[in-house]
Amino acid sequence: RKEHPTLKVRLPDSIRALSHSELNSATLQSADVIVIGVSSPGVRWASDVLENHSARPATLALVTKGLVALENSINPPLTYADALDRSLTDPSGNLVGIGGPCIARELALRQPTHVVFASRDIRVARQLRSVMQTSYYRISTENEIVGVEACAALKNFLCIGVSAMITRYPMDQSNAKNPLAALFNQAVQELLILSRWISSASEGVSASTDTAFMLAGMADLHVTVGGGRNSRLGSYLGQGRQLKDLLNNELNGVTVEGVDTGRMLYAGFKHACQTKLLDPQSLPLSLAILNSIMHDTPFNFDFTHLPPGSDHET
Amino acid sequence: RKEHPTLKVRLPDSIRALSHSELNSATLQSADVIVIGVSSPGVRWASDVLENHSARPATLALVTKGLVALENSINPPLTYADALDRSLTDPSGNLVGIGGPCIARELALRQPTHVVFASRDIRVARQLRSVMQTSYYRISTENEIVGVEACAALKNFLCIGVSAMITRYPMDQSNAKNPLAALFNQAVQELLILSRWISSASEGVSASTDTAFMLAGMADLHVTVGGGRNSRLGSYLGQGRQLKDLLNNELNGVTVEGVDTGRMLYAGFKHACQTKLLDPQSLPLSLAILNSIMHDTPFNFDFTHLPPGSDHET
Repeated sequence: RKEHPTLKVRLPDSIRALSHSELNSATLQSADVIVIGVSSPGVRWASDVLENHSARPATLALVTKGLVALENSINPPLTYADALDRSLTDPSGNLVGIGGPCIARELALRQPTHVVFASRDIRVARQLRSVMQTSYYRISTENEIVGVEACAALKNFLCIGVSAMITRYPMDQSNAKNPLAALFNQAVQELLILSRWISSASEGVSASTDTAFMLAGMADLHVTVGGGRNSRLGSYLGQGRQLKDLLNNELNGVTVEGVDTGRMLYAGFKHACQTKLLDPQSLPLSLAILNSIMHDTPFNFDFTHLPPGSDHET
Repeated sequence: RKEHPTLKVRLPDSIRALSHSELNSATLQSADVIVIGVSSPGVRWASDVLENHSARPATLALVTKGLVALENSINPPLTYADALDRSLTDPSGNLVGIGGPCIARELALRQPTHVVFASRDIRVARQLRSVMQTSYYRISTENEIVGVEACAALKNFLCIGVSAMITRYPMDQSNAKNPLAALFNQAVQELLILSRWISSASEGVSASTDTAFMLAGMADLHVTVGGGRNSRLGSYLGQGRQLKDLLNNELNGVTVEGVDTGRMLYAGFKHACQTKLLDPQSLPLSLAILNSIMHDTPFNFDFTHLPPGSDHET
């Protein structure tokens, strides 16, 4: 019986694993659905493999989260919904973005959760759901794929600042919970602003509140703050540590997706603030995270920046 | 130096505590601001004290959370914004509802947080903020007092079901986090539906998404699931325990505000479902909590009820 090497869970006998060297054109071209689940630096590789084998699946689903910015671009970064090679994706919508709270090991152990499948063509998302949904893997569908992909990537970035609150205000045996809830709230509000900004640069429907305040935004942020590499980084920053030091020590060799997302955001974010497409006063948490990770400075969130923007008087 | 008897924190010398027997007309009539912070069963008493002393403060603020239903009423329950004696409140808006994540002991220790002051007259809320805001107690203002009061009460009720997920799916050394995030998400969506329903029965503006998806809703739910009596009850229910048994044992003598809120909701909720003012398919978590606490049955949330409503196909 097979045990997954990192999940440490026995998988059903019906599942057959192939190593990447065993992938061939026959297999890839006959697939009904291809799901890409590599980490964000591997998306280029995965896309090349599919192209080299002329694989153009009727449904291509993405579990990978990330943003793509062209070098020195002053535009908002793109989601994979717009950045994947056009030869792989059909503009009418064979691509399905997957978001929502889903720690892989819990899913493998069949613990219940609720996720979202998004596609420009809602019928493609619904069809994939009809294959994938079980009593414990529950699936909503929607057509705001850019909003879902933007939230899924941004939540890793914002998680860093929220998770700093896990350690930042020690009390008795544990840590204060009010600051954590206050910054969780602020992160969700900033998810909405940033996902709308990213969607505005894309074709199709723009992100509604439903996306940021639902599974791909709020709910996935909730589980991400609860554990994982972005949260570990945030917890260290909350203790006064700095990024470079951590990447040379405790987080040596670890891919922290939220840091990559921050790097992809940076140039476009700065430009959008200068040109007033974004109001920096409404984004104090994003600014504090960018300051810390881009300039390798201690993470400091100043609570007098709340409430953000024009409501902020005294 | 004074130490608060339950918070176990030394309070500033400028604070003078009076016992309720020391309250008199001179003190109460000269107060600039009166803040009511009793538990919900004490609101009637507090309101009587103010009336007996002819105290009509320019600003009356409420920290107490709760709903009020008239016996056998089939209408939505009222918030204190509508249920407090009219002799105490000025319809143009001397009442300020206070919501948001705020564990009292953390505030006394000056840990930072972000809350919301709501008043039908936004100027009253802003004026109170100008007196109360500090570098660690940050305050947003808005005019949706009924939405804020409804969310503040409902989050205690919904917390019970979310907190059941803390214990319901044990894994290794801890508990699964996907189900907790999935029901946190569902609770926030139901907060929006229920707070709109309650607001619809009140004069003035109806609850917008801003209220449920902000400090008084989402953020206060976050901190409430993190600890307190509603969360304790939920954690026990997640282990298969039942309400009556708990109220006779571990929770003997404990006021669980979320249970009172559920009782106040019940008749109006049932009637609204029958008359299609509420769609029960969109409220699976509220239904599961009501079933458990009103009929003293084990709490069971069936994940096949997600996604809720018409999107629920297979």
